Amino acid sequence: MPELRQSRVTKDWVIVATDRAKRPHEFRLQRSKRELPPHDPACPFCPGNEGNTPPETFAYRDGLAAANSSSWRIRVVPNKFRALAPSGSFDRQSVNGFYRRMDGVGIHEVVVESPLHNVSIGTMPGSQVEEVFLAYRERYNAIWKDGRFSTVIIFRNHGVAAGTSLEHPHSQLIATPIVPTHIRRLLDEAMRYFDDHGSCVFCDTLAVERRTVERVILETENFFVYAPYASQSPFETSIVPKKHNACFGSASELETRELANVVRLVLKRMNEKLNDPDYNYVIHTAPFKDANEDYYHWSIQILPRLTTQAGFELGSGISITTAVPEESAKFLREENGKTQGASA
Amino acid sequence: MPELRQSRVTKDWVIVATDRAKRPHEFRLQRSKRELPPHDPACPFCPGNEGNTPPETFAYRDGLAAANSSSWRIRVVPNKFRALAPSGSFDRQSVNGFYRRMDGVGIHEVVVESPLHNVSIGTMPGSQVEEVFLAYRERYNAIWKDGRFSTVIIFRNHGVAAGTSLEHPHSQLIATPIVPTHIRRLLDEAMRYFDDHGSCVFCDTLAVERRTVERVILETENFFVYAPYASQSPFETSIVPKKHNACFGSASELETRELANVVRLVLKRMNEKLNDPDYNYVIHTAPFKDANEDYYHWSIQILPRLTTQAGFELGSGISITTAVPEESAKFLREENGKTQGASA
Repeated sequence: MPELRQSRVTKDWVIVATDRAKRPHEFRLQRSKRELPPHDPACPFCPGNEGNTPPETFAYRDGLAAANSSSWRIRVVPNKFRALAPSGSFDRQSVNGFYRRMDGVGIHEVVVESPLHNVSIGTMPGSQVEEVFLAYRERYNAIWKDGRFSTVIIFRNHGVAAGTSLEHPHSQLIATPIVPTHIRRLLDEAMRYFDDHGSCVFCDTLAVERRTVERVILETENFFVYAPYASQSPFETSIVPKKHNACFGSASELETRELANVVRLVLKRMNEKLNDPDYNYVIHTAPFKDANEDYYHWSIQILPRLTTQAGFELGSGISITTAVPEESAKFLREENGKTQGASA
Repeated sequence: MPELRQSRVTKDWVIVATDRAKRPHEFRLQRSKRELPPHDPACPFCPGNEGNTPPETFAYRDGLAAANSSSWRIRVVPNKFRALAPSGSFDRQSVNGFYRRMDGVGIHEVVVESPLHNVSIGTMPGSQVEEVFLAYRERYNAIWKDGRFSTVIIFRNHGVAAGTSLEHPHSQLIATPIVPTHIRRLLDEAMRYFDDHGSCVFCDTLAVERRTVERVILETENFFVYAPYASQSPFETSIVPKKHNACFGSASELETRELANVVRLVLKRMNEKLNDPDYNYVIHTAPFKDANEDYYHWSIQILPRLTTQAGFELGSGISITTAVPEESAKFLREENGKTQGASA
């Protein structure tokens, strides 16, 4: 019997299409591995081509090497093909006496994650991934301090199905001048939950998931990883800090390093067990002005792109998933054939 | 300068990324035409294979031929790989003392649009497309009369990027036992607009678009076709009835036939000018209980799948489009090199 499940956080329903569901191992991709060289002279993000990007806004590099020289470990640069531009008016304007517009003012940056062309978060050393996440936090807090923007979306697109054609390992961040309506709705739902229950819906979810066990993927000192009860698509994964905190930028350096290793481990498992699936991840965090709220809680959502949203999703907002979250969690929880962390 | 535009209907913002926008003709696909045979003996929807689908729920066929025989023009059958099942409990149940679930009860049907394997809405004769839309209306109203369901989503997925791998021309409909949260939010926004202005936001949009001219694609006696001001993606197209009506099922037979020809004409132009792009279309209609509301208005949304939603969209709900709606409308408005309908 197919099942309708409702998310406590978004109130959105999903359909778990049991009549056509697949077992976790059936999602493993049959395609051959992406074969890339460690260095591509034509790649704008490979060392030696620093002049092909706008000047960097942040970098980790060895010793006293100059900005925009080739000796970097991580490099953050404005996106040459930017979605938003760094200056313009913040005023909302009326169009045709009916619509509302504003200048597309914002920050759009690329985090080049490694000098190597052929690695990814799931295959890099932990120390490298730690610096990627520290760079996220650095830029997040610098944009917060700038004071002109409402929020920052930090995200990673891996593979063509996830919306990128650039192979060099990179993430992006976009700061927007408005609170996106979608995020406002999440905040509203979370606030309503808080008003009803006197507690954070994300903290309560974490407690329920820990007690329920079957959707747990892994747990570390400060982070909890699980398959959401109302997962939108196969192998959707949530990573949440155990301690209540609305704002990613408020994570400590140690927490950020731990987070990096957790994300790396989850992506390493997906890479090995599903054969390098395309995926997006995104850091969900409160808008700057809501950074200290009791009712919101930052998290990372990983969404492998193994299926395609079609007309039904477009019309209803209801996702149809062909994987059972409890089975997906068990599959990702097991390492080298043995079950670890939560019991299966 | 990139631009942020807000939809009056959904309140969602989109980014028109002018810095990396393409001209309409640059979206034309370079791939070679899909070459399909008119009949595929292995296709479950081709004539002769009626036994490979569940028994039909509706059909247009010549003369007195028996149900499920091969002499049909349109055939509606339950989806063998159904997302929802036709019987089960309508009760909401609590899970883990925290979540909410219900049986995935609903109707999931396939509208087989033609006995020919290698046609599509944009390449079929008008009379055939008229019967497709009359079949939609027939099934919509039959499910309404059934009385157990909240709404019906009628949609079409064309091509792999739009979520289908079945080549035989077909649409689908899914009746859900709940009002999807996404649709509830649309209704709420539309009601709020009505309370503020005393008018339907869709009727007002139509008036503004007709006056503004530049986003008009075409207009017939009863239908108006335009590129939404806040289009989510390149060549998004809205088709709305000019007369206020919340419910697709209430369209008259004549209006339904006219609608079919309008949809066919738009898809024919997209097919010719963009080289057979993958697309979804969906009929947005009020839930049955809201069929007579003053504030909602049914419509068809066509969404070519020329770009991929990525991590930023996932995190923010803000779509980034690389086409300027006014240019897309002009491109689709022009037929055989000359501008017709609204002036350019």
